[in-house]
Amino acid sequence: MNKPVNLDDFEVGFDIPAAIGMDESEIQTPCLILDLDALERNIKKMGDYAKDHGMRHRVHGKMHKSVDVAKLQEKLGGSVGVCCQKVSEAEVFVRGGIKDVLVSNQVRDPAKIDRLARLPKLGSHIIVCVDDIDNVADLSAAAVKHGTELSVFIEIDCGAGRCGVTTTQDVVAIAQAVEAADNLKFLGIQAYQGAMQHMDKFEDRKAKLDVAIEMVDNAVKGLKSVGIEPELVSGGGTGSYQFESNSGVYNELQCGSYAFMDADYGRILDEEGNRIDQGEWENSFFILTSVMSHAKADKAIVDAGLKAQSVDSGLPFIYGRDDVEYIKCSDEHGVIADPNGALKVNDKLRLVPGHCDPTANVHDWYVGVRNGKVEALWPVSARGKAY
Amino acid sequence: MNKPVNLDDFEVGFDIPAAIGMDESEIQTPCLILDLDALERNIKKMGDYAKDHGMRHRVHGKMHKSVDVAKLQEKLGGSVGVCCQKVSEAEVFVRGGIKDVLVSNQVRDPAKIDRLARLPKLGSHIIVCVDDIDNVADLSAAAVKHGTELSVFIEIDCGAGRCGVTTTQDVVAIAQAVEAADNLKFLGIQAYQGAMQHMDKFEDRKAKLDVAIEMVDNAVKGLKSVGIEPELVSGGGTGSYQFESNSGVYNELQCGSYAFMDADYGRILDEEGNRIDQGEWENSFFILTSVMSHAKADKAIVDAGLKAQSVDSGLPFIYGRDDVEYIKCSDEHGVIADPNGALKVNDKLRLVPGHCDPTANVHDWYVGVRNGKVEALWPVSARGKAY
Repeated sequence: MNKPVNLDDFEVGFDIPAAIGMDESEIQTPCLILDLDALERNIKKMGDYAKDHGMRHRVHGKMHKSVDVAKLQEKLGGSVGVCCQKVSEAEVFVRGGIKDVLVSNQVRDPAKIDRLARLPKLGSHIIVCVDDIDNVADLSAAAVKHGTELSVFIEIDCGAGRCGVTTTQDVVAIAQAVEAADNLKFLGIQAYQGAMQHMDKFEDRKAKLDVAIEMVDNAVKGLKSVGIEPELVSGGGTGSYQFESNSGVYNELQCGSYAFMDADYGRILDEEGNRIDQGEWENSFFILTSVMSHAKADKAIVDAGLKAQSVDSGLPFIYGRDDVEYIKCSDEHGVIADPNGALKVNDKLRLVPGHCDPTANVHDWYVGVRNGKVEALWPVSARGKAY
Repeated sequence: MNKPVNLDDFEVGFDIPAAIGMDESEIQTPCLILDLDALERNIKKMGDYAKDHGMRHRVHGKMHKSVDVAKLQEKLGGSVGVCCQKVSEAEVFVRGGIKDVLVSNQVRDPAKIDRLARLPKLGSHIIVCVDDIDNVADLSAAAVKHGTELSVFIEIDCGAGRCGVTTTQDVVAIAQAVEAADNLKFLGIQAYQGAMQHMDKFEDRKAKLDVAIEMVDNAVKGLKSVGIEPELVSGGGTGSYQFESNSGVYNELQCGSYAFMDADYGRILDEEGNRIDQGEWENSFFILTSVMSHAKADKAIVDAGLKAQSVDSGLPFIYGRDDVEYIKCSDEHGVIADPNGALKVNDKLRLVPGHCDPTANVHDWYVGVRNGKVEALWPVSARGKAY
């Protein structure tokens, strides 16, 4: 852990932002850092919650895209596997040793269906979502071709307005088609209400989830009425997991952002009206950035701009500082209002990005830090795996 | 070019989105595609413009982050080298064989300064920007240590509000310090007005550039008054290059986006009031995306969301289609309004992203297409090189 750092280790160029044992002050910026203590506490806390509520927890791997984080979630949080959104992500998690992988999305392209159907050969249980009865025959044919079995969730659009069927009739029809198809196994229901996760008020989120739970409950009853029993009913995110856990309908959670937190999730309120990043979860995920210019007295320019984060959910906030503010973002630069001239060139700041998922997606590495030292250098294993 | 495609080529997983010779319809989405004919025409056109106006053209490599595109710009556009924004990007371009590389940014971190000072050993001319006299001694010491020479531009903030000094006095003082420092060569001025490039009206852009040109002209006169002659005065982007070219002050352009175009640049107007993507430049850069769900009659869900693009400058438009519209973006999905039900599952669309630079930055590959076939597969060579 305390090996001396030699810059000649970097002879081929800055292909890594840090080396194990480095002081946090030596990390090359901008890069992602994980506060390992905070990360571990978040993971353990959600794992304990799920266990206490009799829920399986299939952690959302599309958030972090990291085999190492997924394995930490298995170890400390008792997670049962991952969900992810792309076949190429699933390939990375399977190759990394995750034994139960749900592609919580539709797979329609012939080449993608073929890849998906090969994956069980590598020893993992593979689940995929379906929202169109025309997809069933294609999935079945590919599984037959490769001599594998794919499990299937029927996806219900319970409010997010993206993929998913909206009637119990469709759920039942597709489930029956899956049951009748070779090499497919109907396993249950996917119902993730993505559109309410970031609503500020607990009661507003609860109202949206009540509607979702009713839809899912109807679908489950419809399936049972034709003799089909869903083994799993899966869904729930960081803004809703309490509702699914207490629904009596869901039995599997799919939370992702709780492990890292971000500015957009952090500002939503818990039942008592407190921000969820002020007690419920800790910020463990930061963009480390450095001041690179202070040519104007009241503004510092830092090295983390649009290429170090996604600003779709707003600008980052500066962790632990009230005296300076990130006010503007361009491709390569952030502008920091520094009215008191508190910052100087090469000072480092921790930014909490607006949105963790697409921010992780632009980086190659997580630098894990503990007590001011670099303890881990984890690849963002599925970065770029969009297809 | 017409080798038959075998899916078993992809045995290790979707690590590439396409193979040479593939039909465009077989490309794995979402991914970046380049219309090679349009790209080549854009590159040639800007090259001809620069030549006709007696300007050097140092293309902005931070836009595409691609050694292959930079080499095409040398070959077809007569470019003299690249600029880029990070030392790690400069390393990629130098390793890729680009012989003249400007880091059009400040370099302050000790490790970054050390890396920068090593780069000339690989045979390329390296230029760096300075906006703080305190930086001069550090750069000089590193160049002395490595037995190299670094060229220096003094950066003027001529309106972008980021890095750069704002007075002729500062320009002169830093230039004198550079001239006096070992192993540094004062080469000229960096003055890029980044804040006006996207103003819609030609006259508004011209007014901002007039101010910039006056600042730069004053600085040049100030330098000459103390016997320092700047060899290069560099700046200019896709929204301003005519102004620098006709200024009589600048002699080097730094355009980037002209080669690809994007939605945000496309909507700015030329002198005659026409969008610049309707004649001046062609869209050569697209996100190819596929319809993956059409469970609702009036909405298609495509596979390019926030992880396939940056939406900092707005949502993408769908190229060549007026009947469908990209109306919403989440992590993994785009929602397409399809009021007439014109789309079906697996249909492909070309999206023109809001902002090309940070969109290229999330992808690993450019798929070059011509006449419906994949002709090139180029890595986004400096992707992830943020430090």
